[in-house]
Amino acid sequence: MSSIPPLGEATLPLPAAESAADTNPSSISDREATKQARRQVVGQRPGSLIIHENSYKPRLFMISYDADVFEEREYASYDELIDYFQRNAHLRHWIDVRGYDDLPLMERIMDDFELHPLQMEDVLGDYQRAKVEEFDEGRLFMVSRMTEFTSNLEIDDDQLSLFTGPNYVLSFQDDYDDCLDSVRQRIRSGRSQIMRRPPMYLAYSLTDVVLDHYFPTMAAIGDYIEHLEELIFRSKRADRRLLGRILQIKKDIVRFRRLVYPERDKIMEVLRLPDDVMPEEMKVFFRDCYDHSVQALDLAESYKESVNSLVELYLSDQSNRMNEVMKVLTIISSIFIPLSFVVGLYGMNFQRENPHGGINYLNMPELYHPLGYPILLGILLLVVVVQLVYFYRKGWLS
Amino acid sequence: MSSIPPLGEATLPLPAAESAADTNPSSISDREATKQARRQVVGQRPGSLIIHENSYKPRLFMISYDADVFEEREYASYDELIDYFQRNAHLRHWIDVRGYDDLPLMERIMDDFELHPLQMEDVLGDYQRAKVEEFDEGRLFMVSRMTEFTSNLEIDDDQLSLFTGPNYVLSFQDDYDDCLDSVRQRIRSGRSQIMRRPPMYLAYSLTDVVLDHYFPTMAAIGDYIEHLEELIFRSKRADRRLLGRILQIKKDIVRFRRLVYPERDKIMEVLRLPDDVMPEEMKVFFRDCYDHSVQALDLAESYKESVNSLVELYLSDQSNRMNEVMKVLTIISSIFIPLSFVVGLYGMNFQRENPHGGINYLNMPELYHPLGYPILLGILLLVVVVQLVYFYRKGWLS
Amino acid sequence: MSSIPPLGEATLPLPAAESAADTNPSSISDREATKQARRQVVGQRPGSLIIHENSYKPRLFMISYDADVFEEREYASYDELIDYFQRNAHLRHWIDVRGYDDLPLMERIMDDFELHPLQMEDVLGDYQRAKVEEFDEGRLFMVSRMTEFTSNLEIDDDQLSLFTGPNYVLSFQDDYDDCLDSVRQRIRSGRSQIMRRPPMYLAYSLTDVVLDHYFPTMAAIGDYIEHLEELIFRSKRADRRLLGRILQIKKDIVRFRRLVYPERDKIMEVLRLPDDVMPEEMKVFFRDCYDHSVQALDLAESYKESVNSLVELYLSDQSNRMNEVMKVLTIISSIFIPLSFVVGLYGMNFQRENPHGGINYLNMPELYHPLGYPILLGILLLVVVVQLVYFYRKGWLS
Amino acid sequence: MSSIPPLGEATLPLPAAESAADTNPSSISDREATKQARRQVVGQRPGSLIIHENSYKPRLFMISYDADVFEEREYASYDELIDYFQRNAHLRHWIDVRGYDDLPLMERIMDDFELHPLQMEDVLGDYQRAKVEEFDEGRLFMVSRMTEFTSNLEIDDDQLSLFTGPNYVLSFQDDYDDCLDSVRQRIRSGRSQIMRRPPMYLAYSLTDVVLDHYFPTMAAIGDYIEHLEELIFRSKRADRRLLGRILQIKKDIVRFRRLVYPERDKIMEVLRLPDDVMPEEMKVFFRDCYDHSVQALDLAESYKESVNSLVELYLSDQSNRMNEVMKVLTIISSIFIPLSFVVGLYGMNFQRENPHGGINYLNMPELYHPLGYPILLGILLLVVVVQLVYFYRKGWLS
Amino acid sequence: MSSIPPLGEATLPLPAAESAADTNPSSISDREATKQARRQVVGQRPGSLIIHENSYKPRLFMISYDADVFEEREYASYDELIDYFQRNAHLRHWIDVRGYDDLPLMERIMDDFELHPLQMEDVLGDYQRAKVEEFDEGRLFMVSRMTEFTSNLEIDDDQLSLFTGPNYVLSFQDDYDDCLDSVRQRIRSGRSQIMRRPPMYLAYSLTDVVLDHYFPTMAAIGDYIEHLEELIFRSKRADRRLLGRILQIKKDIVRFRRLVYPERDKIMEVLRLPDDVMPEEMKVFFRDCYDHSVQALDLAESYKESVNSLVELYLSDQSNRMNEVMKVLTIISSIFIPLSFVVGLYGMNFQRENPHGGINYLNMPELYHPLGYPILLGILLLVVVVQLVYFYRKGWLS
Repeated sequence: MSSIPPLGEATLPLPAAESAADTNPSSISDREATKQARRQVVGQRPGSLIIHENSYKPRLFMISYDADVFEEREYASYDELIDYFQRNAHLRHWIDVRGYDDLPLMERIMDDFELHPLQMEDVLGDYQRAKVEEFDEGRLFMVSRMTEFTSNLEIDDDQLSLFTGPNYVLSFQDDYDDCLDSVRQRIRSGRSQIMRRPPMYLAYSLTDVVLDHYFPTMAAIGDYIEHLEELIFRSKRADRRLLGRILQIKKDIVRFRRLVYPERDKIMEVLRLPDDVMPEEMKVFFRDCYDHSVQALDLAESYKESVNSLVELYLSDQSNRMNEVMKVLTIISSIFIPLSFVVGLYGMNFQRENPHGGINYLNMPELYHPLGYPILLGILLLVVVVQLVYFYRKGWLS
Repeated sequence: MSSIPPLGEATLPLPAAESAADTNPSSISDREATKQARRQVVGQRPGSLIIHENSYKPRLFMISYDADVFEEREYASYDELIDYFQRNAHLRHWIDVRGYDDLPLMERIMDDFELHPLQMEDVLGDYQRAKVEEFDEGRLFMVSRMTEFTSNLEIDDDQLSLFTGPNYVLSFQDDYDDCLDSVRQRIRSGRSQIMRRPPMYLAYSLTDVVLDHYFPTMAAIGDYIEHLEELIFRSKRADRRLLGRILQIKKDIVRFRRLVYPERDKIMEVLRLPDDVMPEEMKVFFRDCYDHSVQALDLAESYKESVNSLVELYLSDQSNRMNEVMKVLTIISSIFIPLSFVVGLYGMNFQRENPHGGINYLNMPELYHPLGYPILLGILLLVVVVQLVYFYRKGWLS
Repeated sequence: MSSIPPLGEATLPLPAAESAADTNPSSISDREATKQARRQVVGQRPGSLIIHENSYKPRLFMISYDADVFEEREYASYDELIDYFQRNAHLRHWIDVRGYDDLPLMERIMDDFELHPLQMEDVLGDYQRAKVEEFDEGRLFMVSRMTEFTSNLEIDDDQLSLFTGPNYVLSFQDDYDDCLDSVRQRIRSGRSQIMRRPPMYLAYSLTDVVLDHYFPTMAAIGDYIEHLEELIFRSKRADRRLLGRILQIKKDIVRFRRLVYPERDKIMEVLRLPDDVMPEEMKVFFRDCYDHSVQALDLAESYKESVNSLVELYLSDQSNRMNEVMKVLTIISSIFIPLSFVVGLYGMNFQRENPHGGINYLNMPELYHPLGYPILLGILLLVVVVQLVYFYRKGWLS
Repeated sequence: MSSIPPLGEATLPLPAAESAADTNPSSISDREATKQARRQVVGQRPGSLIIHENSYKPRLFMISYDADVFEEREYASYDELIDYFQRNAHLRHWIDVRGYDDLPLMERIMDDFELHPLQMEDVLGDYQRAKVEEFDEGRLFMVSRMTEFTSNLEIDDDQLSLFTGPNYVLSFQDDYDDCLDSVRQRIRSGRSQIMRRPPMYLAYSLTDVVLDHYFPTMAAIGDYIEHLEELIFRSKRADRRLLGRILQIKKDIVRFRRLVYPERDKIMEVLRLPDDVMPEEMKVFFRDCYDHSVQALDLAESYKESVNSLVELYLSDQSNRMNEVMKVLTIISSIFIPLSFVVGLYGMNFQRENPHGGINYLNMPELYHPLGYPILLGILLLVVVVQLVYFYRKGWLS
Repeated sequence: MSSIPPLGEATLPLPAAESAADTNPSSISDREATKQARRQVVGQRPGSLIIHENSYKPRLFMISYDADVFEEREYASYDELIDYFQRNAHLRHWIDVRGYDDLPLMERIMDDFELHPLQMEDVLGDYQRAKVEEFDEGRLFMVSRMTEFTSNLEIDDDQLSLFTGPNYVLSFQDDYDDCLDSVRQRIRSGRSQIMRRPPMYLAYSLTDVVLDHYFPTMAAIGDYIEHLEELIFRSKRADRRLLGRILQIKKDIVRFRRLVYPERDKIMEVLRLPDDVMPEEMKVFFRDCYDHSVQALDLAESYKESVNSLVELYLSDQSNRMNEVMKVLTIISSIFIPLSFVVGLYGMNFQRENPHGGINYLNMPELYHPLGYPILLGILLLVVVVQLVYFYRKGWLS
């Protein structure tokens, strides 16, 4: 999960994860989106399959089960897998393809499982919003997006594509690690409902576990918001990077929301499928998913509001700091500038003695008074005291 | 209810309740939401029951009544309760389960009253939006959220889950104290409509009383907004914590709205239930609930607008304060800096006597004038007066 | 109507009406809303009638008429009224109940006219959004809200509740004065359509006159916005209360909109009533009402935009004022600080005569030059002129 | 059209048209709306006709035509017109009433053409949103609003009311000049489709020409926005009136949008009329109108965005200007305040000669050094140079 | 594509493309929109064809094909083209008209292909939102808008108009270069689906390739946003033009969104066409288009959020810079103003010797102390050190 630094540190240095973000000056612009936009291939034949360059070599896993049988294996070749699959048509199978980088294999799977080229293009493509499609009367093609809050403050999302069939679920993802292990564990345990229910229940379980993962993502974001708030309250100086990070988190939340909205709509569409495709007893479960997706959106709204408040707080803080600087300047200037005038006054060279011999008795007689200096010092002190009282009353001295 | 400090205090110190909020530096980030997000268990079998660790030990209450009979009791054991319940099938019952921390008991209740595991998961789970579900043809499962404005300026919300049956209402909540006492009082009084109407009327009464509690919550928030406004108007210094508290209240209101929207939608759905499930004479009452829920939302909108105005006022105030600081600086500087120049001028050492013997009659003859000093003082005074008049005309001296 | 002060005054002092608002420090927080929230009675039996404490003693008026007959009277007792009403079933009647503070009377009216307790609760309750309800197949219950812009800048709104019957309209309001006099005048004149049409037309006329009153309310707000704008343009200092008043007006407009939206929806619902309840020839009139309600909303939107612009103008003005202060400071400082340096320079005491007897010819020979002082004054003047030209070119001297 | 001043002027003085706006201090508050609100007559009998005081004396025009005939005339009296109209029932007529100020005439027209009093009230009334009403099975009543961007930066709008009949279009407007001349020209040319098609096509042509006039209005606003942007970029000082004008334009755009939205909705309703009222071959033309109205709204949105950007730019500019002022102050102060300190230092009067006869060798020996003064001047120069380099590096000297 | 300058440059000068924008002071106001508004011809006969003055001379291209045949040619005259077209009715044709500036030709095409004059007006007109229209039972008229991000930071959009027929697609655009070459290449390659499918598939392919081009446009905008963000982080001074450019990009994104929304709605309408006009096997492809259009909108939202963050960052930066300036001023002033006071103090001329002969022992005895000067220097140094420590602790010295 995320390597968000702990809060307890004394000096609150910007931790490593954040420094990483700092060397990356483009944390606000939505790089993810730009990459996504850039990768779209223009004018390509619709339905033509293209493997993105960073794809993984495919690994093939299959879990085959019914209420009594359980077999889990990584298959070295697709032939081996399809052979086992065909010989055990009485079992249910979860065929789990991880990695896309083998175009002929992908095309073979597409043909064997009668997938539409446009569907396969969605599977292999760079980015597909969550959606559900019915095809071949009763089979479903579902896309989910799995999220993770990474250590450099971005939301990573991977695509999980599912095809259901009479006795199998075929899933695709371009990663070896995923968030579906809890489902595998439940099957392995042998006591799961999955063993006793149709493959649609497995598809549901996979959708559900993806949805469940939205909450730790949100919790990590929530923790980071708290962290940022603490930084604002503790930091002595307006830190430009702080605002950058707040805005980055805001972008993440907006992005998360855009990921989850289609997920919610997808489940809504599942609930509207006719009962022969999606029986009522399955819909009960998807209705639960729907509640969760709405809650995830609620959370995202909640955090968005929090981040907006953080921005307001940051900007107000900036203004407060300026205020403080100005007060220091004003207090110092207001006290010493008048004093300087007074001492300048008695630094004037008006002459007591007239060059023509007389005495100018009115020219600065104070300078000749035996107590002139102590009295002046007293007056200066008084001025300072009066000013300090004035500023104290105004609340500027705290 | 809320321990909001009274407004009448002379010095308007930040009261204890608020200090509590201050030691809690994360008042803006939605901690409640983060906790909620964190508690979601990932990959758990759907419908599996989990008791949260801070749950209360269950206490079992039942009120049994018809138009003539009235029996209210806390039952020491579930066996006792279910025994009484089954022997008195001719009565109506309100079974009131407070506290969840007994998984086997919860499962027994679920089985006895034929609740769906997913429903029971919603009951025991951490957070479920208000909703209504019809099940078993005619039974309703309703979730309401009860709100309270706590002394540390947060909205606390607890869940009330209701199941209706032919002759009972089964309610769950994870707290011993609740806001339903007024309903109990009305039953105890023996004159309530509840005694003479079907259990659906009791369910309505419970929903209604939860809705009614939204108004004191809102009133407490309204009072606190007034308090904050007074603080802004009275406070001498921009107080960072003040903005924090304003934003906290804003978050509360947003949160409240998110609680009440589903409540309104729930009641709307109740009104759309077919007449055999929810008869027209019951809908009249729920229509009244609907009006109340809309009014609660109206209030929330009203307060949201008020809080936004508070933020604007706070920020403008900050700016006004800076303005005032700058004016003091400018007035002091503008008066004394020119004066200092003049007195510096006459502190110059231009020599009347040329080292070669002549007299430099043009070198500062003013210094030798018998009235040089008094005249200069007069001029300085004049400069000050002119400047003061100028600043007065500009309205800076008030 | 509103006692908004005239604009023509020379000094634009804050007039009395506004001072009232000033002593009330909570003009921004929606006090009206808070009161409304506070008055809601929690857990009360639904449909139980409660009279609010500030209610008026009821006075009973009835206008009885048909195309030829006209009888208008205040009845000393309800018995007298109901007696006349029942004896003249061939006439049409407008029964006009003003004041609620007589619970038994209210209950008697409720029973006599077969009103639902929940409807009566809406009548007597503190606040009910505008709405229309059909009941008893063909009778209508309509709630309107009458607005007024008060002299302390708040929108006052009172409730008018109407029940239609086969030959009467029954109206309730908790005030002796109202805005319905123009309808009474039209009936008294004897030439009104009201005399010749069914009671539904009277109900329409009452609804229409309430709607018509929204426009003077809006005009008063519009006038006040103009007044505020003039204050911003004329005022010399940023006045914190000015912003308070702008925000108060904004709140009023938002509130007004929230009052009128349900009114519009109500009329929309009236238009959707089946033709046997609301005949097409009556709908023509309500369609006209609908146009008016939409126009009132348009006006409110228009004013909201204007107020937002006022806020922007106020804040920009604040910033402009700071700018002006800073310019004065900068000009004064920039001119005199360098001059002070120069005169300080020639106030230094570098000695021409070496203590050891020689002459330090390089130590401030300027001081001994016969024209040292006049030349220096010339240089200082030049510096000032150059700076003034510079500032003039920058446009700072205007 | 609008008398927007040309941009090419050297000094960009605020041109006459704008000065007019300046003497009018209420350019932001929506005066138009306030007037509109104020003129609404309260409690008036619905459908009663009232002529506003500034109305024009009616002038009566009629164009009578069919594919071959063309007759255009101003009629001195209504009798003459109606006589010609009735004698030529085989022709199509556009009866064009300009000016309302003759109540009996208006009532006669209303009766002769069987208009509903409420419709006539809409015609004569002060303000009616664009709308379409079907009446008398097949006749249409359509209201359009004609806009113009006036020289004092407001959007003027006049109402055009149309009634269609089997062989005529009856139009009302309260102005002698209008924007319909292009339609008249097309009829006069004798080659227009109008001659060969039913009156509904004439009604469409009139609606279309009103819509077409929205675009020059928008273009004038667009030009003015460009002008304002240039003013922001060129002006040396923050000009409060500039913001006023930006906000005024924003209000205009918002107002324009509110005028055009109902127009679009009106045309949408026309498109939904049953085919016997509005035949499909006419709908093709109105569909084109619909596209234009949507494009006008698109333009308005575009301009609204531009104006919002102008506000942001203006405020940022204000802030930039403050920044510049502060930099001048800081540079001057930072250079001369330390220098003043140094020269003040050597203006101190510490005595070399002890009153008791000894020499205080440590008291300011610099003053007696033969090169004291030149060395000091060198040091001062160095300080200045160092500071200038520092400020240059910070980019403050440009 | 766009000539956005590379980011790697050392000094980040504003590159040529941007300077071009700078000489154009109206980059914020939506010039494109103003031009569009201005070109609308008022009062023109609907459906009258007008060629805009900057139109290109038409060039006529036709690709004729079926599964086996392929013929691509530019035709010198329309007669030649139409002759070939009519003689080869068994083939499918893509007739590609580039340039409009030949009114008689356009009218001939309109007549030959039975297009409605209003449709032709949309083709030749300046701006038509994306739309689809069914006409002649089964033929479609589709308008798409092709976008490009130009080197002076504006989004250029051209119109592509398509008419489908039984065996042809007729396309119009007013440019010789376009973004459709990839489709031509696919046909030329001979292996494309286009050869084997009905003309509707060609229409789809053209729509799809236009949609695909939205992504490079967005990617260019995304790159530019990154570039701007880097400029904000690196630039030393608040640069007014920087904000101008940010707001310009914002306007572009808003504009892009307004281009793509109708595109999405168009495809939605295509999906709703009856199956005989748009068969289900074609809808599969348009559904894919729909996904892409939604993704383009998602991207636009994402970028809008990023740009808003840039504005916030820019403004906060402006404020930070002011803060920094103020700190320099405050530090310098706070250190030297008190020092100046002290040295001014000892520049006073209080006399030790009374003119009447006595000694004023209290008048500035410090001046006569043998260590007066060194001690004073020490004190001054101490004051400076204390202040520096204070400012360092406040974090102002970094």
